[in-house]
Amino acid sequence: MSKKLTSAVLLVEGGRQDADLVYASGFSAPDPVVLLVHGRRKTLAVSLLEFGRAKEEARVSEVLTPQLLGLEGADRHRLSQWAVAVVKRARLRAVRVAAHFPVSIADQLRKAGIRIEVSTAPLFPGRRQKSPTEIKQIATTQRAAVAAMRAAMEWIQSAGVDRRGYLRQDGKRLTSERVRRLIEQRLLEADCAADETIVAGGSQGAEPHERGHGPLRSGQPIVIDIFPRHKQSGYCGDITRTIVHGQPVPEVARMLTAVKAAHGAALKAVRPGVAVKTVHTTAQETLLRHGFETTVKNGWGEGFIHSTGHGIGLEIHEAPSINLSSTRLLLGDVITIEPGLYYRRWGGVRIEDTVVVTRQGAKILARCPYP
Amino acid sequence: MSKKLTSAVLLVEGGRQDADLVYASGFSAPDPVVLLVHGRRKTLAVSLLEFGRAKEEARVSEVLTPQLLGLEGADRHRLSQWAVAVVKRARLRAVRVAAHFPVSIADQLRKAGIRIEVSTAPLFPGRRQKSPTEIKQIATTQRAAVAAMRAAMEWIQSAGVDRRGYLRQDGKRLTSERVRRLIEQRLLEADCAADETIVAGGSQGAEPHERGHGPLRSGQPIVIDIFPRHKQSGYCGDITRTIVHGQPVPEVARMLTAVKAAHGAALKAVRPGVAVKTVHTTAQETLLRHGFETTVKNGWGEGFIHSTGHGIGLEIHEAPSINLSSTRLLLGDVITIEPGLYYRRWGGVRIEDTVVVTRQGAKILARCPYP
Repeated sequence: MSKKLTSAVLLVEGGRQDADLVYASGFSAPDPVVLLVHGRRKTLAVSLLEFGRAKEEARVSEVLTPQLLGLEGADRHRLSQWAVAVVKRARLRAVRVAAHFPVSIADQLRKAGIRIEVSTAPLFPGRRQKSPTEIKQIATTQRAAVAAMRAAMEWIQSAGVDRRGYLRQDGKRLTSERVRRLIEQRLLEADCAADETIVAGGSQGAEPHERGHGPLRSGQPIVIDIFPRHKQSGYCGDITRTIVHGQPVPEVARMLTAVKAAHGAALKAVRPGVAVKTVHTTAQETLLRHGFETTVKNGWGEGFIHSTGHGIGLEIHEAPSINLSSTRLLLGDVITIEPGLYYRRWGGVRIEDTVVVTRQGAKILARCPYP
Repeated sequence: MSKKLTSAVLLVEGGRQDADLVYASGFSAPDPVVLLVHGRRKTLAVSLLEFGRAKEEARVSEVLTPQLLGLEGADRHRLSQWAVAVVKRARLRAVRVAAHFPVSIADQLRKAGIRIEVSTAPLFPGRRQKSPTEIKQIATTQRAAVAAMRAAMEWIQSAGVDRRGYLRQDGKRLTSERVRRLIEQRLLEADCAADETIVAGGSQGAEPHERGHGPLRSGQPIVIDIFPRHKQSGYCGDITRTIVHGQPVPEVARMLTAVKAAHGAALKAVRPGVAVKTVHTTAQETLLRHGFETTVKNGWGEGFIHSTGHGIGLEIHEAPSINLSSTRLLLGDVITIEPGLYYRRWGGVRIEDTVVVTRQGAKILARCPYP
């Protein structure tokens, strides 16, 4: 289509946290809200319950309630009618919405004669290149993640071993659950939240999103992936280390060497203007050169089965994805570099840092030793 | 419309937690998934990365990947094409979706000739009446919330007071932030997550969703609202108490008496078959009899400005809402009863318990003293 797209952006959130809403208005709420961004004008509609807080906290031109929008009776409780009223009040005939915009509200807007342009690109492209303030906020979260990672690594490495090879601390077996709790306590002390920390030992680590459970053993790889969100700023951090208590078996030692090499090579490939596929294929080829192939059989994948990284900011996963696309890295992109290898027989190995793209290349936001 | 609705339900989740998905499949993932529920048959499509974990954890008839769905090239990365492929594979011409279903995927399904029926009612009505297992899981979370509430109340009530009326503990001023951290540490020890605990003193409490910040004072009402989710089961709990260190001013004392009376009267009105509006108006009328009116001026509401409660389960807010609707309570509904009063001059007062609807009426899931 060559038709010029409308510049008016409409967000409707029914009680879930939305990074675009936080980015555009500085406001988030457990209750439904409607935000219309039209040029420099931002109109926020909230429930009566949120009016005072929105007036105080939201960076918008005006805050309205269903009553102030002139809605009556049951329409006051219909989020779709809030959206229709906000768009009509601005005399707009079309709005741009995100791909995840609710179909029920889109259909009601269409019924009211408003054209809906579903955006395949990010609604606010400015979200991608982080400002110095945003980089500081991500770095703050990342430092909390690194501190928690160091505590977890020290606890595992100083553990004793029983006759059956299980790790012990404080007279008890060391489990994924105990390590995760230590990590989450450290994060809480730094005002960060993380509900899904991964501490996955042995074959559990072969599933990249398995959180991990049960006793940990000496000699097996333990994948620790910490990705907290700061409770005040909302910005995320992300770090992964794979550690082995004692001696790894030769295959795991080779996996660790290969992933460390792929991680280093991918980091070196990062610079403004480079295509993300260059970074991804650098990691792929390094692993291949170390003899690690990727295979898929009957739905089961083994080897390097994910992308090399992802953008990070108000969302843990945001643009750009470091995969086979031709998208180019931009100055101020904050991304993760996290190659990994996964074999059901040996477990998982992943090494991840969060970096900002600078003129000099990738700058690691918070350093953490590679064990 | 008298047209018979299709019974096939389609869920598409792009990386957010979804209670319907957890309820229907026992599975959740940070990555996109498609679930089709067609009679007793459940088909789950996940990325290659999630295949192993989905095979292990999901209660479904089959797990597919984009490859197993026969998708090629870029279509393997298009969630809309996963959805189209899953629906076509089941030879369906219509599917029912939730109100928050993504418009981008709905439009692609329509383009592929599939009718979309947007459900205004819950997709899985069975989610409302909780099974004995679910009630136990909510009670487990609620007990953790009560333990954290007791610790917070004791800490506040045993605090010292400086010359300016500020509370002190451990040689420092007691702040909303310190109380919130104590609560969250207790929740973490019970394997519960809560990122939005409210500890709001004085006029901050007049905003029902203000988290609270800064030093707490003697004599002012402090609203503490704890609503954790259990990290294993996913089930939520919800409790609120309003406490005053020392003597409240007469207006706040009257508010406390009125809200306690409204809470008791609403609890007594709860039984299977009663309309939720009966419970809500019981609370409203009790507050009015105690002399507390609700007013709205220029968008600002004061008095009893929210509903009396909400259903709770895998979501913190789910059906039924205890408002002015004619919906009737059902055996096994788990709801909160939480009347409150909010005046910018005096602050907020709210008292909340989580109860299950039994033949004998409301049964409180975990008891906590009313200070």
